[in-house]
Amino acid sequence: MRISRNHPRFRSLETRERLVRAFQAGVVAPQGLIAHGRGEAFDYLFGEITPKSSQAASRVAAALLLSARNPVISINGNTAALIARDIVRLAHSVPAGLEVNLFHKSVARERRIASLLKRNGASRVFGVNANFRSRVPGVASPRRIVDAEGIGDADVVLIPLEDGDRAEALRKAGKMVIAIDLNPMSRTSRAATITIVDNIIRAIPELVRVIMKMKPLSRTRLSAMVANFDNERNLRRVMKDMIRYMQGWA
Amino acid sequence: MRISRNHPRFRSLETRERLVRAFQAGVVAPQGLIAHGRGEAFDYLFGEITPKSSQAASRVAAALLLSARNPVISINGNTAALIARDIVRLAHSVPAGLEVNLFHKSVARERRIASLLKRNGASRVFGVNANFRSRVPGVASPRRIVDAEGIGDADVVLIPLEDGDRAEALRKAGKMVIAIDLNPMSRTSRAATITIVDNIIRAIPELVRVIMKMKPLSRTRLSAMVANFDNERNLRRVMKDMIRYMQGWA
Repeated sequence: MRISRNHPRFRSLETRERLVRAFQAGVVAPQGLIAHGRGEAFDYLFGEITPKSSQAASRVAAALLLSARNPVISINGNTAALIARDIVRLAHSVPAGLEVNLFHKSVARERRIASLLKRNGASRVFGVNANFRSRVPGVASPRRIVDAEGIGDADVVLIPLEDGDRAEALRKAGKMVIAIDLNPMSRTSRAATITIVDNIIRAIPELVRVIMKMKPLSRTRLSAMVANFDNERNLRRVMKDMIRYMQGWA
Repeated sequence: MRISRNHPRFRSLETRERLVRAFQAGVVAPQGLIAHGRGEAFDYLFGEITPKSSQAASRVAAALLLSARNPVISINGNTAALIARDIVRLAHSVPAGLEVNLFHKSVARERRIASLLKRNGASRVFGVNANFRSRVPGVASPRRIVDAEGIGDADVVLIPLEDGDRAEALRKAGKMVIAIDLNPMSRTSRAATITIVDNIIRAIPELVRVIMKMKPLSRTRLSAMVANFDNERNLRRVMKDMIRYMQGWA
């Protein structure tokens, strides 16, 4: 369906149609469409801009990624469909590994996502080789299976658009977790070490920008930023930003 | 996928899977899955209960339906997938007409929805006979086409899960509009004569209950209830209910 540029919801509708096309191409799961809708609603509640509190979380996330031993970015269908090029740029900028990891598992979809990442410049993609599987304890879904050289070995995992079960299990497995989630009340947001409450379409390019700026900083400086960050307090700030926007309507 | 009853989000996940199955059966459009996700998010912000302000709107909606000359309920894929049986009960209780009307038009899907309604007890379904088409002026989507004997002739139209363009156009065409929408800030919510901000899974059975109770009331009494209702003021109350819930997290 063609959408008029004059439509009051043009940008949101265009992103939505992009996701539907990726669904038709077998990259996105039907449940991924529902998850996208949830994101749209929360984004609406911020007035579709990045709140200051989320910018603060992005800087600390950049510090954690830059000081990690083996950072890995977990990729699902929606992330690949919406922001493949920038997520590959992010992986290069850190540098960090990329691993395909699906809640609604399908080998065919895994391969399509991996090849989409490669077409966008990724040199290596974890999670698509059955010989290197390991398990995250405490996860009931197929997502418990991770690549032994990827998330299995990672000290820091970036999870854009993750489910709560797995976010909690990754923390229990002793990993530091950076979540990108538009719902500040979700289990994922609360379980993560650092939560960036933002639309991935804005959050990933922002993260690349911040990383390029922070690269010269010393490891001591980066570690101090991470140590001083209180995710729970920041999520309360995010909620206050959201409430302030909504009060304009009440 | 099977979901454990012990999962903290069991009910929401089960409804979601029901919609995915309806999508696979060709009743729901891919964009309908995204729309459902938006609803899930807003429902979450109410703590997944019906706020008092919405109960008030339901009573006035019942009064308007009972005093209408020719009330018609507009049905799309999501409504049919989630609450077919109750929507047919609602139509019988008023009585009101049922019309299939799709944003993402498809004759095959229209027929599947009509037959789903008939299997759930509907005797007649408008919107599936190409000989009785008329147009709502000012609507760009295929939804402008309505059944001349259904929505085309209606004085009151109930639109669960509607897009903003069409809600505004129905008002401009001089019809009274009852919307059921979980987003109190949407164009649909603001355009409607009466907006019930609630999940249709709860709102439709509630509407049937209220209608059964209000049937004995006089036409004068019903009209007074409608005349005294201020939708804009009620939507501000809804926003306040939502903000109150969110403040518990901030």
